[in-house]
Amino acid sequence: MIRFYEKDPYAPIQYSYEVTRILYRGRSRFQEIEVVENPFFGRMLILDGVVQITQKDEFFYHEMLTHVVMSAHPDPKKVIVIGGGDGGTVREVLRHRSVEKVYFIEIDEEVINVSKKFFPSVASGIGDKRVEIKCMDGAEFVRGRKHDIDLVIVDSTDIVGFAKSLFTKKFFTSIKNSLTPNGMFVTLSESLHFHRDIVVEVQKTLKSVFPVVDLYTAPLATYAGNWWTFSVGSMQLDPREIRRRGGIRTKYYSPDIHRCCFLPGEMYDRLLDGKLGW
Amino acid sequence: MIRFYEKDPYAPIQYSYEVTRILYRGRSRFQEIEVVENPFFGRMLILDGVVQITQKDEFFYHEMLTHVVMSAHPDPKKVIVIGGGDGGTVREVLRHRSVEKVYFIEIDEEVINVSKKFFPSVASGIGDKRVEIKCMDGAEFVRGRKHDIDLVIVDSTDIVGFAKSLFTKKFFTSIKNSLTPNGMFVTLSESLHFHRDIVVEVQKTLKSVFPVVDLYTAPLATYAGNWWTFSVGSMQLDPREIRRRGGIRTKYYSPDIHRCCFLPGEMYDRLLDGKLGW
Repeated sequence: MIRFYEKDPYAPIQYSYEVTRILYRGRSRFQEIEVVENPFFGRMLILDGVVQITQKDEFFYHEMLTHVVMSAHPDPKKVIVIGGGDGGTVREVLRHRSVEKVYFIEIDEEVINVSKKFFPSVASGIGDKRVEIKCMDGAEFVRGRKHDIDLVIVDSTDIVGFAKSLFTKKFFTSIKNSLTPNGMFVTLSESLHFHRDIVVEVQKTLKSVFPVVDLYTAPLATYAGNWWTFSVGSMQLDPREIRRRGGIRTKYYSPDIHRCCFLPGEMYDRLLDGKLGW
Repeated sequence: MIRFYEKDPYAPIQYSYEVTRILYRGRSRFQEIEVVENPFFGRMLILDGVVQITQKDEFFYHEMLTHVVMSAHPDPKKVIVIGGGDGGTVREVLRHRSVEKVYFIEIDEEVINVSKKFFPSVASGIGDKRVEIKCMDGAEFVRGRKHDIDLVIVDSTDIVGFAKSLFTKKFFTSIKNSLTPNGMFVTLSESLHFHRDIVVEVQKTLKSVFPVVDLYTAPLATYAGNWWTFSVGSMQLDPREIRRRGGIRTKYYSPDIHRCCFLPGEMYDRLLDGKLGW
């Protein structure tokens, strides 16, 4: 039996998966790209040795990254998606009818090509006429926008290597300057079990830029630590409040999940004060 | 570097851990018992190749197994704990002052001895004068009780091997017969990510016995699938309602967590109808 052993430098548990078939293996300018098949998860997309999505459970991550801020915003029309070359986040954004324009900024064109070929149901929205693809650095693209964007969604790899520039105060400030007064920004921010220091650092950096900052979680089976966090920076609106229903059918996300996915206030305060007690 | 590779026949991800020291390795009448040390999790208790508790994060599991039903019950005085030889569940039960008697039924005395030696802060309540230890089969003990128990808590190993008898209709019926009119029962019931069929089976079996049945979850880093479930059977009381505060300080459990840990009603219905869509 072939096994794939994940290469996550931060994870205190090593995850490994049975591989029944290797469907693709290549190297882009930016990273190693692999697509393998597993009996339980189906096809898996692996970048630089770390699982990004699986056919079976990608919707947990994509729904939770997207629909929380989409539902907290009263009328999202223009959205920037940075990263997420597999297309899953773009697909979820497009399900909201209010959306008129999605700027899809993926630095690595090869990820888009591989995903179109091996994950057609994930990449399904990429060709939509509302989507404008730009293969460039997300930070650079955002710097060029001024107060016309409703939502910015960062769907990057882990906070290492070239993705690091997407977690700096400078980048968060550019995002803030790109947003309308009701604008919001969301990014993954690693696991509360395994990377608590990173979670806190992202929150504190966001707080130095945005008036409203919050944190929510989702249970993701194939991300190290699983108790995965998403960090929100908002110009004024409280992301915990649901302001509209997109009229969409989801598998995991729901208004009930929305109300319960945010960290309880008391736990959030202890987290930021370094007083969680574990 | 020594690594410990978990032997979980049900898990589609194999978990492995760095081992800096092997502190204990032995075989009881029932199972293989190991205690190892890991740089992140500290000491880990392993039974038949599966991680049971770690020094770092045992409280997530013990608090969530215990305090939900303890807080939903108006006045828990007599409690049965079946399994949980490490003592963590007994420790949490004893923190509620209303408790007058804990019947601690662990089939494998060796687990208690090993835990007292290597996990003293987990086993700390075992010597309490309110605790009566019986090293015997939990199912047999419960059969001898009649309507005098407020709560039964099953803290077993995975639902395989000798623990299987703790998940049958016959056992659930004995528990029901042991409970007072406000009585409740809680048991672990595996992961929603990896063992959904088992979760549903436990729920359906409980429904054939108890008038009120429910399901809640917690994010547990060292249990396969992590999105771990707990199944409740209740004589009449809704376990979602908080009826008292024990006045205790917890690390993870809180009234906010209590209100949000139960599966949303709509997702629960889809789960039981086989219509989750994943």
